[in-house]
Amino acid sequence: MDNSNQNRPRLRDMGVKIGVMPTGESNSICDLPGLKVGHVTLIKGDGALIRGEGPVRTGVTAIVPVDDMSPYNKLPAAVDVINGFGKSVGLMQITELGEIETPILLTNTLNVGKVSQHLVEWVTERHPKVMSVNPVVMECNDGSLNDVQGMHVGREHVFDALKRAGKDTSEGCVGAGMGMRSFGFKSGIGTASRKVKCDEKTYTLGAIVLNNMGGTGDLRIDGVPIGKILAEGRWKDEPPGSIIMIIGTDAPLIPLGLRRVARRASFGLARTGGMASHGSGDIALAFSTTPLMSAPVEDIKNAAGRINDFFRACIESVEEAIVNSLLRAHRVVGRDGNTADAIPVDIVADLLRK
Amino acid sequence: MDNSNQNRPRLRDMGVKIGVMPTGESNSICDLPGLKVGHVTLIKGDGALIRGEGPVRTGVTAIVPVDDMSPYNKLPAAVDVINGFGKSVGLMQITELGEIETPILLTNTLNVGKVSQHLVEWVTERHPKVMSVNPVVMECNDGSLNDVQGMHVGREHVFDALKRAGKDTSEGCVGAGMGMRSFGFKSGIGTASRKVKCDEKTYTLGAIVLNNMGGTGDLRIDGVPIGKILAEGRWKDEPPGSIIMIIGTDAPLIPLGLRRVARRASFGLARTGGMASHGSGDIALAFSTTPLMSAPVEDIKNAAGRINDFFRACIESVEEAIVNSLLRAHRVVGRDGNTADAIPVDIVADLLRK
Amino acid sequence: MDNSNQNRPRLRDMGVKIGVMPTGESNSICDLPGLKVGHVTLIKGDGALIRGEGPVRTGVTAIVPVDDMSPYNKLPAAVDVINGFGKSVGLMQITELGEIETPILLTNTLNVGKVSQHLVEWVTERHPKVMSVNPVVMECNDGSLNDVQGMHVGREHVFDALKRAGKDTSEGCVGAGMGMRSFGFKSGIGTASRKVKCDEKTYTLGAIVLNNMGGTGDLRIDGVPIGKILAEGRWKDEPPGSIIMIIGTDAPLIPLGLRRVARRASFGLARTGGMASHGSGDIALAFSTTPLMSAPVEDIKNAAGRINDFFRACIESVEEAIVNSLLRAHRVVGRDGNTADAIPVDIVADLLRK
Amino acid sequence: MDNSNQNRPRLRDMGVKIGVMPTGESNSICDLPGLKVGHVTLIKGDGALIRGEGPVRTGVTAIVPVDDMSPYNKLPAAVDVINGFGKSVGLMQITELGEIETPILLTNTLNVGKVSQHLVEWVTERHPKVMSVNPVVMECNDGSLNDVQGMHVGREHVFDALKRAGKDTSEGCVGAGMGMRSFGFKSGIGTASRKVKCDEKTYTLGAIVLNNMGGTGDLRIDGVPIGKILAEGRWKDEPPGSIIMIIGTDAPLIPLGLRRVARRASFGLARTGGMASHGSGDIALAFSTTPLMSAPVEDIKNAAGRINDFFRACIESVEEAIVNSLLRAHRVVGRDGNTADAIPVDIVADLLRK
Repeated sequence: MDNSNQNRPRLRDMGVKIGVMPTGESNSICDLPGLKVGHVTLIKGDGALIRGEGPVRTGVTAIVPVDDMSPYNKLPAAVDVINGFGKSVGLMQITELGEIETPILLTNTLNVGKVSQHLVEWVTERHPKVMSVNPVVMECNDGSLNDVQGMHVGREHVFDALKRAGKDTSEGCVGAGMGMRSFGFKSGIGTASRKVKCDEKTYTLGAIVLNNMGGTGDLRIDGVPIGKILAEGRWKDEPPGSIIMIIGTDAPLIPLGLRRVARRASFGLARTGGMASHGSGDIALAFSTTPLMSAPVEDIKNAAGRINDFFRACIESVEEAIVNSLLRAHRVVGRDGNTADAIPVDIVADLLRK
Repeated sequence: MDNSNQNRPRLRDMGVKIGVMPTGESNSICDLPGLKVGHVTLIKGDGALIRGEGPVRTGVTAIVPVDDMSPYNKLPAAVDVINGFGKSVGLMQITELGEIETPILLTNTLNVGKVSQHLVEWVTERHPKVMSVNPVVMECNDGSLNDVQGMHVGREHVFDALKRAGKDTSEGCVGAGMGMRSFGFKSGIGTASRKVKCDEKTYTLGAIVLNNMGGTGDLRIDGVPIGKILAEGRWKDEPPGSIIMIIGTDAPLIPLGLRRVARRASFGLARTGGMASHGSGDIALAFSTTPLMSAPVEDIKNAAGRINDFFRACIESVEEAIVNSLLRAHRVVGRDGNTADAIPVDIVADLLRK
Repeated sequence: MDNSNQNRPRLRDMGVKIGVMPTGESNSICDLPGLKVGHVTLIKGDGALIRGEGPVRTGVTAIVPVDDMSPYNKLPAAVDVINGFGKSVGLMQITELGEIETPILLTNTLNVGKVSQHLVEWVTERHPKVMSVNPVVMECNDGSLNDVQGMHVGREHVFDALKRAGKDTSEGCVGAGMGMRSFGFKSGIGTASRKVKCDEKTYTLGAIVLNNMGGTGDLRIDGVPIGKILAEGRWKDEPPGSIIMIIGTDAPLIPLGLRRVARRASFGLARTGGMASHGSGDIALAFSTTPLMSAPVEDIKNAAGRINDFFRACIESVEEAIVNSLLRAHRVVGRDGNTADAIPVDIVADLLRK
Repeated sequence: MDNSNQNRPRLRDMGVKIGVMPTGESNSICDLPGLKVGHVTLIKGDGALIRGEGPVRTGVTAIVPVDDMSPYNKLPAAVDVINGFGKSVGLMQITELGEIETPILLTNTLNVGKVSQHLVEWVTERHPKVMSVNPVVMECNDGSLNDVQGMHVGREHVFDALKRAGKDTSEGCVGAGMGMRSFGFKSGIGTASRKVKCDEKTYTLGAIVLNNMGGTGDLRIDGVPIGKILAEGRWKDEPPGSIIMIIGTDAPLIPLGLRRVARRASFGLARTGGMASHGSGDIALAFSTTPLMSAPVEDIKNAAGRINDFFRACIESVEEAIVNSLLRAHRVVGRDGNTADAIPVDIVADLLRK
């Protein structure tokens, strides 16, 4: 297996800019001050699927908005469910209270129960008096490459992903992205960010996606119908797939504002050719790293007054993150020899130039 | 510990009828043809709390609408989130698709992750080709009596509850109800049902509740302010608590109709004195045991035409089920000697007579 | 016609207190500093209905949270649609932005279009550069007493109601309440309020309702099943009816908090015997007179920390306002001789004493 | 003024096909059997704005899904509010009941009250016993070209639009589209349709849009960034604008299915460069011309089984309808000499060829 995804280019490396807004320094969700990302990637075995043994092509990704999130340390958040054929947990309480109280974990569909249990353990071990905690665990289904029924992500992987979390801007076949496919190619994790000016202040908005959706023919990169050309001879019946889109900002938005930002993630998704098909769990979660009411009132007014700029930053970041999740992912052979090819960078570059 | 809850009276045994509609034969959700309920109750240890050891006062309850529920065998369903400070899983997909595809499990707050994992195992072991399944697991927090951080409900308990499921009309300290409290007294599981006539046909609507909410002073039974009198000298600062209300019917309602029925569960809740306090996870889930589109068109029209009767049946059943969950629950001493007294039946009967 | 509704007693005059919280000075929504209410009541003709002529038994009620509301002067707000079989306008934008920008007008079902047009005129005449305004007009159907198809509320009535607005605590057959019925009796406008202590500060929450719902047998006053006794010999087939519940507070709540408060209005409704029947438009709208972000941060934190007290204040105020809307309404004979009797105060008082 | 919009090309006339699905015969919502569209276009005066006099550049468009819609003749329907900064009426009841009971009227923002009143009159004059009717009137703001405060659409225009309704596939500056602008150019009404095969049957899905949104630089036609090139030298500060997207199908979908179809309208919108900006009222309404439960059960199953094809049909139809609304609209000079140029067809054609 070729593990070279970190040498593959991002979209900007190919000379293509999505939208008009300036990116953050690393053009990733890690541009948010204090925010950390951690991946644990699990690869084991080859050949025929034996339930509970493998082959394993999966993982877990932790997004830690600020240090030591807990029911004592909450952040404003909101959710937009684009298509709810999914198994993510924790969203109901976010909608009710407008808050998250744990890091956000990404993993595979059937592993959500175990991972959420271990996230609860992680919180309650740090805070022994906590008797109620709302774990946020989101998922896509890597069952075409991975022994998904095996639930291979365990306690140690959850704790490791949280421990390792740092300014990790990896993309492609890392963490929860290990077993994902999109538009007929290998995909996984992708990220991007934008700067938003509000009078004197400049805020950051970043997106990180776990991308597992789309049929080949539908793929568009910056509007160019790449998929139509690449679709010749590829798998016809794509599994429906899903996408998780996490959007973070350090702007002091209230939950209602974050809900409106989250709604725009689907606009970035649509521009890549995604259509939120029947069987997909397409969900956007937006949070602010500024606790509600901790910001000066003037800041909140300014951030709200420029909400359109946050909408646009969200759309651009999501669209670019999705493309990055494809470009950066290398070829993977999984269970039963199922193979997901990397998207051919040379051909794509050539098409984009025209 | 006194295990005599099955000898305690239900509300009807005390001569009080909630509402005006006729009950089903057993006045329980088990009146629905084919529906089964199974409880596994866990009691272990006494004295000081040792995390992971006990004392254990918890359990799991399975509601099996029809045999062998799976992604191949779905039923129409809908959800109403009254107050979403809760950790129930599976609700997003129900809202999107208007369907449930697994039995509904009830357990404690921090055990949801494990129980949902085991429910997924239960389905995938029966249907090895299933790669996506939406487990529905709902919860209240029994942490005042139980070692809730210990997550004592495991695979064998989940599988047992599903295996044992039958026409079990137990109430009070059974299954997930073992560690619950309400209005300052011990509570747990309660159930009730109503018959709904639609022209020639008679349908059944039943409710089963996992009741863990309410401050003593607020309790009303059939409108009588029982709680005001009982409140003297009782715990002042009740934990906020939660309530799960499951409503089933054999009438052929579409998801939109079921959503409207579910919305009325909160009316039954309100009449007992419940107020869906800030920290509560108050959720109603309604399902039909008649698969969408399997009923003759005339039936569906008739059921919809009488939707008001289903609204009323829901309100009456939920109100009565909540009261039953209190009346039938015996005194329990839990972790750290925390004690939940049974509601005093004699005093209540006396007050209701006046 | 007996116009003596202002001599009829309120519930407190009969010695009955709903709930446990202290009322505001006038026990009405007018206890909110700055808030004004104005009614225009239309009564014309008798006898057989002639479409467009009468008899007229209708009106319009204006609730003006603060002076000169306009798109330049918005307040935080939220909506809970309990049963959406209704024609109220303006709710979508409230849900999106969490704001109201006009006074709230109440009128009859078929008059909403005209009244909303005139409300737009009222705003744009004061603010000629405004090219977009979101009128909030809510309604119940007074068609059993009034020539509802005649749309008798016109521009002058809308402007008058807004002009007259003051500390008007009238109840019963006033304004939009003129033609309404509830639980088989004449009803109309009702109001009540509660004080909420948050540390050093005391806030007010008030409710005003336009009550047109309920079948006689279901009525409960403070839990007492008054309706069962009064139901003998009364109209069997009540029209389904509707209720509009407006909740205002001066506490600095964000829209998400107001949405949660609005959700509790249905708990007050349920306690009176209301069931949000199929054909009803049952809607709660909550607003704060404190502009978002204008309050000191500490105030907002405290108000949020005591959200349960606002929940309770909402439930109690709504329940009491509904009862007041009945008690205070006198007998009315309307179109085609249709008659709505006043609820018999003596009998009710007698029943409540027992 | 150049009234030649009917001579301007549609997108297909320029050789560009959106998506992969076959269109209906006229590639318009009129391909739905029985469905009719009627426009009344109002043009009066020139020069400086005099409130209430003009210049008038507005109108009303009626979409009549089937003949004689009324509370006795309802159709399944659902709504998706993308951004709710809008004044459309009737949506709450659609969400509650999953039904429409009147034709759908489109007009300008401040005229909604009057138009809804006249729609109520139109229904009640046909059905004198109707005492409750839910008018559906949707809007965009034509205030940059039109005397929007003048509310020039009156009773006769509403009745005329409904009377004239037929297989009218006009686009551009017709009906409610008269005063609309989009992406910095004149726009208005646009439409498109797709055929959906379900086993033996072929259904139609059509979209008609009232398009008033978008900044020039964002416009994309079939992915080509036309707007970037055209943006040079054009108005910088576009008003935020809005879009109404009506989707009809003859497939027997239940309201839940229609809600999911409506959700995909925003995907078509996103692909044109729309971003649902803060100040826009972006709303999708989907309906079926097949009454709920009138279709054979097998049909409903098949239509639901192919829901993805309806998702795609919706996305493609909306994207193409939006482009048509631009291409077909001629230059209009409005109030105060404000001018909206037609999009330059030759330049666009040239850019699309490359």
